[in-house]
Amino acid sequence: MPDFQRGDFQSWASVHQSRFEDVLRRLLPQPDAAPQRLHQAMRYSVLDGGKRVRPLLAFAAGELVNANIERVNIAAAAVELIHAYSLVHDDMPCMDNDVLRRGKPTCHVEYDEATALLVGDSLQSLAFQLLAEHQLSDETSRQLRMIKLLAVASGSRGMAGGQAIDLDSVGKKLSLPELEFMHIHKTGALIRAAVQLGAHCGAALDAVQMGRLDHFGKCVGLAFQVVDDVLDSEADTSTLGKTAGKDAEQDKPTYVTLLGAQAAKQMAAELHRDALDALAGFGDGARRLRELADFIVLRKF
Amino acid sequence: MPDFQRGDFQSWASVHQSRFEDVLRRLLPQPDAAPQRLHQAMRYSVLDGGKRVRPLLAFAAGELVNANIERVNIAAAAVELIHAYSLVHDDMPCMDNDVLRRGKPTCHVEYDEATALLVGDSLQSLAFQLLAEHQLSDETSRQLRMIKLLAVASGSRGMAGGQAIDLDSVGKKLSLPELEFMHIHKTGALIRAAVQLGAHCGAALDAVQMGRLDHFGKCVGLAFQVVDDVLDSEADTSTLGKTAGKDAEQDKPTYVTLLGAQAAKQMAAELHRDALDALAGFGDGARRLRELADFIVLRKF
Repeated sequence: MPDFQRGDFQSWASVHQSRFEDVLRRLLPQPDAAPQRLHQAMRYSVLDGGKRVRPLLAFAAGELVNANIERVNIAAAAVELIHAYSLVHDDMPCMDNDVLRRGKPTCHVEYDEATALLVGDSLQSLAFQLLAEHQLSDETSRQLRMIKLLAVASGSRGMAGGQAIDLDSVGKKLSLPELEFMHIHKTGALIRAAVQLGAHCGAALDAVQMGRLDHFGKCVGLAFQVVDDVLDSEADTSTLGKTAGKDAEQDKPTYVTLLGAQAAKQMAAELHRDALDALAGFGDGARRLRELADFIVLRKF
Repeated sequence: MPDFQRGDFQSWASVHQSRFEDVLRRLLPQPDAAPQRLHQAMRYSVLDGGKRVRPLLAFAAGELVNANIERVNIAAAAVELIHAYSLVHDDMPCMDNDVLRRGKPTCHVEYDEATALLVGDSLQSLAFQLLAEHQLSDETSRQLRMIKLLAVASGSRGMAGGQAIDLDSVGKKLSLPELEFMHIHKTGALIRAAVQLGAHCGAALDAVQMGRLDHFGKCVGLAFQVVDDVLDSEADTSTLGKTAGKDAEQDKPTYVTLLGAQAAKQMAAELHRDALDALAGFGDGARRLRELADFIVLRKF
């Protein structure tokens, strides 16, 4: 695979990442507001880190439908808060027991376990608060659909359900369809939600277009996980910003352990192609979505 | 204090409790749907237990405004799912480390800690899903306000924030205002939300009436905690259905340790009176709310 040529995309992403950091700083509870330690821990867990892949997908989908950027900011923040809460809870000793995240001590290490539990819980509430208190659509009924969409993507039939399947899979030999089912939930659901929520902030797409966009989200979400598995097996901790080699150490099934590195890379390339095919009818408005698919598959960290 | 005379109220409450159990059984993910273990643990943590005080408050507030019972069912379920999630997380080893809840092993004892974490997370998502996917009001904008209301009541400025203050208070000597601040968040926020959400399901009250109803909720919420503290210091584990005497053992400040049992009972009586005063203008429609205030203050478990 050739290295991804960043150029213009790189500056588009940087501008949005930096701008979005300010959005999060503003939307999170301020560090001097009571209860201060909890609010500081929430900010610690969300700010200054991460590639913001889900928000970038929301911004790219928003561009496709000429969405108001203030609206997409809120949708992107809600998705990112859900993602951040899942990382905080996932890192806890009773789950993955990880001490390093985005190059920093994990929340329960920097604070304590009880605080990490409450940080995750509070970030989830805040995500739904944001979607309910800001105007995201001219139609309030559409806004309710957006809230439902994020709730389903986060819950037991989405991300949290995928984590439960993940827990049950430790030490087991999964088939490829079982592994795919797990990741479509664990990682895929929220990535799909990011694309859909971004698109819901602007002009309505018809059902066929929305279906194609959702297929794009599904392919990119799965590709993201396949690439994650490859990187986890090949990269080192300092590049990754989180503990490398954890999957093998914990005897978790991954695309690499199941297929081998070469076939996993091949699978990522196929998903990449499927994702781009899904956008074929969208013209130049989908440019950033295409570039994000490239970035997700060809990234090195 | 005289014993609370139940009579007609008792049968009203029983009918709603039993009916509401069916509502929860229907709204929770079915036990045979994947991921099964997570869904079974969610049902284990919510069903067959609890006095359902918050749902009863929602039903009573719904009666005040002639609300459609199907709508109040959903609002009540959302509040109860948030309450249930908070108990599951609260009982975990990194929080209160409790093994008994509603007379049964706590979720992390019956299942495991990782599952308990995901059960709580998923119950929270489901609460917001319910509020977004069912019609609760003729005005969708009012429904968005209801979602915001529950999110704020649950998050870092509500229930979860109160728990954070509670954690920080272990081993400290709090003043009465500090203890009150903690409980207005930890217990009070969700009880107030239950009353308000029930009232939002029916004919709109004016701002003054809504303010009175909210004051009722605030008084009842605080009285609930004061009575809880008294019961914890006096009852035994089998009556309580959860481990008695935990507060003293964990050196947590309570109304009893701060004021003494007698003054704490006096405080509950005053809050009871304030709660009833707040309903003075409402006539017979508020009858069940009054009876619930009586029940909450005069209960023995």
